[in-house]
Amino acid sequence: MLTALPQADFIRELDQLKAIRRQIRLPGDDNRQENSAEHSWHVALAATVLAEYAEHPVNITRVIQMILIHDLVEIDAGDLFAFNDAADHAEQELKELAAAKRIFGLLPGEQGQNLLTLWLEFEAAETHDACFAKCMDRVLPVFQNMQYEGGSWARHGITRVQILNRNALLERHAPKLWQYVNGQLDLAVENGWLKG
Amino acid sequence: MLTALPQADFIRELDQLKAIRRQIRLPGDDNRQENSAEHSWHVALAATVLAEYAEHPVNITRVIQMILIHDLVEIDAGDLFAFNDAADHAEQELKELAAAKRIFGLLPGEQGQNLLTLWLEFEAAETHDACFAKCMDRVLPVFQNMQYEGGSWARHGITRVQILNRNALLERHAPKLWQYVNGQLDLAVENGWLKG
Repeated sequence: MLTALPQADFIRELDQLKAIRRQIRLPGDDNRQENSAEHSWHVALAATVLAEYAEHPVNITRVIQMILIHDLVEIDAGDLFAFNDAADHAEQELKELAAAKRIFGLLPGEQGQNLLTLWLEFEAAETHDACFAKCMDRVLPVFQNMQYEGGSWARHGITRVQILNRNALLERHAPKLWQYVNGQLDLAVENGWLKG
Repeated sequence: MLTALPQADFIRELDQLKAIRRQIRLPGDDNRQENSAEHSWHVALAATVLAEYAEHPVNITRVIQMILIHDLVEIDAGDLFAFNDAADHAEQELKELAAAKRIFGLLPGEQGQNLLTLWLEFEAAETHDACFAKCMDRVLPVFQNMQYEGGSWARHGITRVQILNRNALLERHAPKLWQYVNGQLDLAVENGWLKG
């Protein structure tokens, strides 16, 4: 009888991501902060329905697996708001690498190594799969903030240029979505949800 | 310029699943109830790391897509506790079918139809992909309730036979996990977390 399952510790660890809070708030649920686990699900499903906009061929299985694991490091390193100082981001990168090694290290050797490698590919954002996965992670808050009258942009006084920079990968990797985002941001500025 | 995106309404609708509460509580996060969006993420990632236990060949992309969408119908129909009366479940099925038509209908014709078909395949639980996806959905609460000293089992006075029936698909579709679950349930009964 299989009394110990080599993947059990990893599966149990995943519950911790449900306690990591993001800047996005959910007006449909008492305005609570979104957590990184439900966010990861939302991005994975966005990638599923937006795959046709990928400019370069992508392997959707790898894209979705990258998305499912992309925020796991926040269990140890926390979620850093996208528009903090560059210095904060450098320190965050070191914390995240240590976290990735610990968390994927909960899995059996080769399986953990494969997911660590996939996470590093996502972070490096050099392959088509990684770039498209990152596009999905970055475009989703545009949908959400437009849905919620500016949401976290309005609360933090974010500018149009900051959002365009953050979504710059879309221009090469999902140009139709890039056009859509540009139009949405124009509308956001017009509505006073985003600084022009 | 692309000013309207045919998938936008669907992507925005997804936020609603984050407000649907399940019976599982999360001791690591103020003991709040788990929601169906973060649950779906957890199941998808469990399937990713447990795929090797599938007894029959499965297409992991389809399995994960089924898992990502499997609870969307709860946006309209709510989450029904697995151990309610059979009559409740019959009524729930009708509600869920109507919900699936409305929600997948938010997508462009063929894309929405494909996801509806995939959801129906999951519900029917006749293909290897659907059975393995269901195995993952059903086995995950075993990990969680064992992690949390009986969790929702203990609170609702659930019996070992109820959990075995609910996980019966594992016997044919993931026999090693079936063995593991049997061992875990023995332990749960021993610990008084589950009725014998």
